[in-house]
Amino acid sequence: MTQTQLIALDWGTSSLRAYRLGPDGAVLEQRQLATGIMHLPPVSSADQAALGDKAGFEIALKQACGDWLMAAPEIPQIPIIACGMIGSMQGWSEAPYLPTPIAINQIGNTLTTVQTSDKLIIHIVPGLIQHSELPNVMRGEETQVIGALSIATERQRKSGKRQVDEVLIGLPGTHSKWIRVHQHSTVPTIQQFDTFMTGEVYAALCAHTILGRTMQAAISAPSDDDHAGNAAFLRGLDVAQTVAGRAGVLSTIFSTRTLGLTGVLDGTGQREYLSGLLIGHEIAVLRASLEQLIQRPQQIILIGDNALCARYKQALEVYEINDAAVMSQATERGLWMLAEHAGLVSANRS
Amino acid sequence: MTQTQLIALDWGTSSLRAYRLGPDGAVLEQRQLATGIMHLPPVSSADQAALGDKAGFEIALKQACGDWLMAAPEIPQIPIIACGMIGSMQGWSEAPYLPTPIAINQIGNTLTTVQTSDKLIIHIVPGLIQHSELPNVMRGEETQVIGALSIATERQRKSGKRQVDEVLIGLPGTHSKWIRVHQHSTVPTIQQFDTFMTGEVYAALCAHTILGRTMQAAISAPSDDDHAGNAAFLRGLDVAQTVAGRAGVLSTIFSTRTLGLTGVLDGTGQREYLSGLLIGHEIAVLRASLEQLIQRPQQIILIGDNALCARYKQALEVYEINDAAVMSQATERGLWMLAEHAGLVSANRS
Repeated sequence: MTQTQLIALDWGTSSLRAYRLGPDGAVLEQRQLATGIMHLPPVSSADQAALGDKAGFEIALKQACGDWLMAAPEIPQIPIIACGMIGSMQGWSEAPYLPTPIAINQIGNTLTTVQTSDKLIIHIVPGLIQHSELPNVMRGEETQVIGALSIATERQRKSGKRQVDEVLIGLPGTHSKWIRVHQHSTVPTIQQFDTFMTGEVYAALCAHTILGRTMQAAISAPSDDDHAGNAAFLRGLDVAQTVAGRAGVLSTIFSTRTLGLTGVLDGTGQREYLSGLLIGHEIAVLRASLEQLIQRPQQIILIGDNALCARYKQALEVYEINDAAVMSQATERGLWMLAEHAGLVSANRS
Repeated sequence: MTQTQLIALDWGTSSLRAYRLGPDGAVLEQRQLATGIMHLPPVSSADQAALGDKAGFEIALKQACGDWLMAAPEIPQIPIIACGMIGSMQGWSEAPYLPTPIAINQIGNTLTTVQTSDKLIIHIVPGLIQHSELPNVMRGEETQVIGALSIATERQRKSGKRQVDEVLIGLPGTHSKWIRVHQHSTVPTIQQFDTFMTGEVYAALCAHTILGRTMQAAISAPSDDDHAGNAAFLRGLDVAQTVAGRAGVLSTIFSTRTLGLTGVLDGTGQREYLSGLLIGHEIAVLRASLEQLIQRPQQIILIGDNALCARYKQALEVYEINDAAVMSQATERGLWMLAEHAGLVSANRS
């Protein structure tokens, strides 16, 4: 077994992803468990007595990577790093938010540690907070941003291209984040970010309002063999850039129902249309805010579920934001980079 | 018992309101039942055999006003009129939508009838449809509009005031409607209307997204003994007219959570803030659309739940739309007026 350099955890609300990383952060092994912080394994009274009120986290950790730790019983131990909701108030130990703008190496310098009953140390990545009129927070996405920047830099170096000054990173999902990064100086700076609850609002509208009653079928990525569905998705995308779209989300979503009533959209079409409608409203706002920037992003990166990234790429093109690149494995790379910044692993990437 | 002139039903999705109306449309008696079209009484197999597949409606009708009908077994029968979802595809008999703009007396001239097994005739009011880029529909609200216009005209006549040319009628609720009426000619015309799913979105966000997790207590009307709650509501109302508000509903709603995380709003405050935020976004759109009209409304009427109308009145004032009058009993008056237009009752109101 190649020697483990770092155990990296992406520990969110509903799932726990564990990575065994080797030299240079190569992924040697990875696992996904359902033991997110809101779904920890059951704790017996004996465990509770032995491990205390954080027993559930400790048991989940051992389930996820106890064998990796056992296989490498070195002194000092293999470092463990974790990002995501594990550092929230409801997590194992709160890693306080750091304020933006922030140089990315400062994040790795400010990890919070927690110790297990058998003296294992887990280093927890802090989230970021933006103290604007309407405050904004992230937890986990900062790690993806750091990973994406590292992968992009490596690609540019390999291709001989010059590094761009301004990057926009989009993370579509339950809560979409759009993050602007400055790379003017040696260390990139996370400058500003926005959150859109698009995914969660979409799910709530489909499952818990009148709009869902006449919908059918699961949502899928646009593909060639689903022309009608994609046409409905595109129709929805377009709304936010029309005069009718100025009425805003609270009003336009009702057209999901009325286009059904008037026979324009069938059940599947209504679902696709609503997806396009919400994503379109999100991207319309994004485009308007980009237009006000003096320094526009020269590079746009999308990170997330492939099918969802494909939808967002299509939406960006409708709103004339082109050349977005979909990137994967940002989280595991980000955790490795943070461990480097923290001095937990040696930075010998060539 | 004063002689019944009309039995008027406001038959929606979740409830059935029945009115016994006397001469001049005076309300002699009224009842509210939980037998909306989605909650009809159980049907036995004997009833099913005797009454057919619409048995549930017939049983609900008899439960609601069988005694009123029995007490007045005249020939011809007392006319029965009904508005609301009873005329939808899922209702007793579909009353097809009429297109806007429409003169209000045309609505009463186009009632759909359905007959019970014992030959009672129910006259069903059609809904309205607006064939715009994003189609819009209403069912039930047209009756409230007709009632409100009748009450307003009567008040103006009594006070000696001149009737205004342009009226805006707001019906806040699960789906808020804003309806513009022209009164230039003898018969008022329903010109244009908008729908906002504000109430339903608010309920879905509170009950089925992360925003609800840290909220407490039931929503209440703003009152003097709830300064903190009202301050949070006002804070939310204000957002849509700030620079931050331009990010739109999908983005601004996330601040409900972050203002909680940063200790600015407690649980109750978060609930009030979100209510203000959504209503504010609705009113901001409304104001923008009013600013584009050549002929602005000279009269604004709000119809609906008193506490909710108070919230909307406050919101309108924040957005500099003043002098909205809250009006009640619009539905029963509207059903009477429609019956008059249809010739079901005699128009001898003085």
